[in-house]
Amino acid sequence: MPHDDPEEFARTVQSTSLQDFEDARRRISQNASRSPLLPLQEQGDDREIRLKAEMLQPGGSFKIRCATNILEQLDDEELAGGVVTASAGNFAPALALAAKSRQVRMTCHAPEATAKVKLDALHRLGVRVVSHPTQDWWSIMQTRDTDPHEGLFIHPASEIDGIIGNGSLGLELREEWPEIDTVVVPIGGGGLASGIACALRAADAGVRVIACEIDVAAPIAGAFAAGGPVPVARRATIANSQGEQTALKAMWPLLRDVVDDVITVTETEAGSAFQRLALSEHLIVEAQSAIALAAALSPRCGGAKVAVVLSGGNIDQSAVLDILGREIS
Amino acid sequence: MPHDDPEEFARTVQSTSLQDFEDARRRISQNASRSPLLPLQEQGDDREIRLKAEMLQPGGSFKIRCATNILEQLDDEELAGGVVTASAGNFAPALALAAKSRQVRMTCHAPEATAKVKLDALHRLGVRVVSHPTQDWWSIMQTRDTDPHEGLFIHPASEIDGIIGNGSLGLELREEWPEIDTVVVPIGGGGLASGIACALRAADAGVRVIACEIDVAAPIAGAFAAGGPVPVARRATIANSQGEQTALKAMWPLLRDVVDDVITVTETEAGSAFQRLALSEHLIVEAQSAIALAAALSPRCGGAKVAVVLSGGNIDQSAVLDILGREIS
Repeated sequence: MPHDDPEEFARTVQSTSLQDFEDARRRISQNASRSPLLPLQEQGDDREIRLKAEMLQPGGSFKIRCATNILEQLDDEELAGGVVTASAGNFAPALALAAKSRQVRMTCHAPEATAKVKLDALHRLGVRVVSHPTQDWWSIMQTRDTDPHEGLFIHPASEIDGIIGNGSLGLELREEWPEIDTVVVPIGGGGLASGIACALRAADAGVRVIACEIDVAAPIAGAFAAGGPVPVARRATIANSQGEQTALKAMWPLLRDVVDDVITVTETEAGSAFQRLALSEHLIVEAQSAIALAAALSPRCGGAKVAVVLSGGNIDQSAVLDILGREIS
Repeated sequence: MPHDDPEEFARTVQSTSLQDFEDARRRISQNASRSPLLPLQEQGDDREIRLKAEMLQPGGSFKIRCATNILEQLDDEELAGGVVTASAGNFAPALALAAKSRQVRMTCHAPEATAKVKLDALHRLGVRVVSHPTQDWWSIMQTRDTDPHEGLFIHPASEIDGIIGNGSLGLELREEWPEIDTVVVPIGGGGLASGIACALRAADAGVRVIACEIDVAAPIAGAFAAGGPVPVARRATIANSQGEQTALKAMWPLLRDVVDDVITVTETEAGSAFQRLALSEHLIVEAQSAIALAAALSPRCGGAKVAVVLSGGNIDQSAVLDILGREIS
């Protein structure tokens, strides 16, 4: 399922009908749950913030939505050779759960920095894991180039059916909170933000979609600033799996068309949001989700009814101890 | 609302009709949410375990159920002098939220070891907090003896309407999972376990109710062993607010009648369950809730469809760092 022309890919995704998103929502319900939309415990005076708690999904993230929507549209013959993906974490366990329910074998190419808790969970699900230096792994993400014997390559971000599966989250938000005016979404490859944005547009919901990144590793903000994907300097951050050096070429035109703004936050802001989520909301999130709450709380975000997508919670014990132990504000 | 005869109190609570529990459930819905019932991410082969995530309630615990059901049955005149309670934590913020929605002032008598995160939250809700040595605080819990100028005393555990409010959780479990055969409930005063048990009995659900404690501070297990409340040796544990030295006399006959078993677990088992909840389920719980999962996982628990009530998540940052940082299998 390669997509040679990113502009055509962007048009195709944007032409998805509301019915297509509704069909995906029905299709994924066998594996995914409807995650709760939780009011932030202490609201500000003039804005209301709610948290879409996707870390409570099977596999610990929203990715069960896209993985299920992809596999459920493939027949047994197409899946007979197995499936293979390149994933820094969240997509892999979700695909593994979806593959297990179809009795399909799976290989995952992972960057060497992948959290151990994620690798352990994959092994328990029977996945064959191949580790790579980050550069080589990122090359697979860009080229989809894997051994044909490993089976059908399924990309964690730029599969149309994956993006449509993610869109189911947008439909839920719209239904659960009709007054919503803004949604803040973590961004890596861009499949979640674009899926939510396209579903909300198909539903004519009038909701702004804000992507968010940490300021020292912000390829999407860089692409918006430059008018296209450019290499960005990237320092080690608490969001260690947010490992992109540039926006994915295959995803850029789509993101350009449907993302309304990108907000960057500091490491301190993200750490403070992480602590607030753990201690006041009782939720453990991955760093990208803490970045999303920090972005929603920033003056730049705006909006009166703001949903924050907490995309996942797969994070190492050592990272939790590190971030939670910091002295912040 | 004193209850001089614990046996009569036990009979009165047990005579609560299914309709009374249904009424309470409707009454509390303005403040409490329906908490999600989440499948444990990695199930064993022959038993299914689900988690009732009450830490996601407003106030961070199940107590919003009982606090709301009590206050909503009092008129403005009865509440004019304010409300006062003795609480180690969870009941206080819940009562504060319910009192705030009725514009009623509130005082809380707290033991000096109360987690700082809990005290801070109370102050932000406008509550007047009075700290006591644990013995003096426990004396108030037993006698309800406070200054009349502080208002109407509302007990965190042994109010009939509070227990009926807690019973709403039992009705939800029965509705969400008709096949449920066992529920494991943390126990302090006993208002949650007895409420759930009586509601499930009123619904004729045939569900075993298992209470759980940590082995080095187990007054309820001690009372079952001795046939009544007896002082038990109590060592410092991760469950620091589980500070009872004996079972509450007012609650004992009720607990004796409706609790099917008490399981005690070790500190290591509870710590391991805490880590699993944080890293695999992405939930921060108070120690009592980790004890409940540990009890459900113990061979003694039994049951094929087991719900674990995660009663709350109000825990200090230092305690999270302590328990999460331990080296446990």
